[in-house]
Amino acid sequence: MKAATFEGKGKIVVKNVPDPELQNPDEAIVKVTHSCICGSDLWFYRGLSPQGEGSRIGHEFMGVVEAVGEDVKSITVGDFVIAPFVISDGTCPECTVGETRFCRHGMFFGTNGYDAGQGEKVRLPLADGTLVVVPGGNDLDEHMLRALLPLTDVLSTGHHAAVDARVGEGSTVAVIGDGAVGLCAVAASKRLGASQILLVSTHEDRAALGQQFGATDIIAARGDDAVKQTKEATDDLGVDAALECVGTPDAWATAFGAVRIGGNIGFVGVPHDIADLPVSDLFGSNKGVKGSGASARHYIPKLLPDVLNGSLDVSAILTEELPLADIAKGYQDMDERREIKVLIKP
Amino acid sequence: MKAATFEGKGKIVVKNVPDPELQNPDEAIVKVTHSCICGSDLWFYRGLSPQGEGSRIGHEFMGVVEAVGEDVKSITVGDFVIAPFVISDGTCPECTVGETRFCRHGMFFGTNGYDAGQGEKVRLPLADGTLVVVPGGNDLDEHMLRALLPLTDVLSTGHHAAVDARVGEGSTVAVIGDGAVGLCAVAASKRLGASQILLVSTHEDRAALGQQFGATDIIAARGDDAVKQTKEATDDLGVDAALECVGTPDAWATAFGAVRIGGNIGFVGVPHDIADLPVSDLFGSNKGVKGSGASARHYIPKLLPDVLNGSLDVSAILTEELPLADIAKGYQDMDERREIKVLIKP
Repeated sequence: MKAATFEGKGKIVVKNVPDPELQNPDEAIVKVTHSCICGSDLWFYRGLSPQGEGSRIGHEFMGVVEAVGEDVKSITVGDFVIAPFVISDGTCPECTVGETRFCRHGMFFGTNGYDAGQGEKVRLPLADGTLVVVPGGNDLDEHMLRALLPLTDVLSTGHHAAVDARVGEGSTVAVIGDGAVGLCAVAASKRLGASQILLVSTHEDRAALGQQFGATDIIAARGDDAVKQTKEATDDLGVDAALECVGTPDAWATAFGAVRIGGNIGFVGVPHDIADLPVSDLFGSNKGVKGSGASARHYIPKLLPDVLNGSLDVSAILTEELPLADIAKGYQDMDERREIKVLIKP
Repeated sequence: MKAATFEGKGKIVVKNVPDPELQNPDEAIVKVTHSCICGSDLWFYRGLSPQGEGSRIGHEFMGVVEAVGEDVKSITVGDFVIAPFVISDGTCPECTVGETRFCRHGMFFGTNGYDAGQGEKVRLPLADGTLVVVPGGNDLDEHMLRALLPLTDVLSTGHHAAVDARVGEGSTVAVIGDGAVGLCAVAASKRLGASQILLVSTHEDRAALGQQFGATDIIAARGDDAVKQTKEATDDLGVDAALECVGTPDAWATAFGAVRIGGNIGFVGVPHDIADLPVSDLFGSNKGVKGSGASARHYIPKLLPDVLNGSLDVSAILTEELPLADIAKGYQDMDERREIKVLIKP
């Protein structure tokens, strides 16, 4: 079969690799119908995070189950499944409380000899704990499938930012970051009942998408100006919840400045060069801080009904579709911010 | 009138001071019936935090209103009132969202020429925003008055730790600190529906009080041993919520170690020498951090009904009662941990 591999900074190649075959009783093989490039893939693409040359890449995909090991109970050949971006057993103490991102036996796709998502097929372990079956998934139209795909990562991640920042009915929210995760955080905040959603964005096209997803205000500024405008939009108070969806020092500063005394910062941008937090600053403001990679496996079943009933649709973040053979172009387009998110069809 | 003053490290003196008289239309004068020494008073008593020599001290008191300024609308002469430990206007943006601790016009007792709580009478500004009237307060018996007094600070503070750590129905909780605040945090957690409450305490008398207030487990250990025993008591997971009620590096380490992946730390011990928090550690564990001094003015009306109906009674933390003239002994007894909390009767 064909699969994408990383061959050094800025170089993505589609290669012939061995077809997967079941090796252990907990495994499944999924024939990928839809895959994605993630903003976090750009870190290794740009040479900013370690990734082995020749390694298999991609962690956002869904498709049809082609084979299951003998111990797999909840997944059947032919099921249409969504794969969250981390493999998890569903039974360890952390999984039991919904923290599947931190499963004791968890791992990432493309590690331990398993396949990754940007390819034709994926063999994965812990299939029962990991995959989520979409009832009637094989009969869904392409628009709905595109609405489902972000559940694998970015929609779950945007939701996680909102959950960690305690967004609820009537909350005022500022979303820092207008990438796919930030835009999904807007949609997730709306779903959770936020009454005012400010999207910090200086890109008109992304701001327009944000408004489509529920943003009530666009803060077309950065840094101190963004904080000032956020205060002005919230009666000089600041927002109840700031969702930090970038991971840079500038985004953190904006999040801290935008959130009110006693508010909460949910952070899901992978932190890069973020200074340690002085406890005295936290104590002097009652601003809460919480964040991590999302436990997508835990969130998908909660979000799925609203995607299937059409009330939660972020499919518009998929601004380009390419065949697997052209995936290198997709990385270039996202790297140069020409596209928000690229859908790959094997 | 008589009032206690701080005269240097370890030296508390009761002096004759001028009787208060109304000076501004927003003020009230309260004749103190009950006052307290706070654990936080020990910081200046021990010379560990700045406090002017000759300054008036004390921020936990209640009593009967003796006079009100012409602008005061909600308080009447003769009312029995509880004073939260911070003065607040009740109308600024922060007060409006319940963050009265951070009132834009707020101040501490004993500052700006106003009286403090450890004396016979207190003149205070912003009386409408600050004082809480207890309906029928003048007819309550001494036991109930002792149950009300902790609302001024330590019970509100323990409750705040639980709120910031998101304690709710079915939560598992570890309370770090067996002082008055920690013991109140146990009672507050029980009130909020926690199903398991571990109190870290190596003092048998305090542990017994904790059990009386709702602790289900006593962790009679410190440091790594306390963390290990907490894990053992929670199926190797750790607790949903750790309430840090001390403010020392050891207590912080125990709180972080005791809380589970994805859990929350509520911290209310005034931080002393706490290292800055690495964001990567937070991101790698989804452990939330939130804390501050409590917005007692916001919490008192929420907690008051349960104190008045007898279901929330932490009066047993008041282990000694002294007349104002003997307050220096009360400081000594708390400093040397002979008493948990000392009630002062002017």
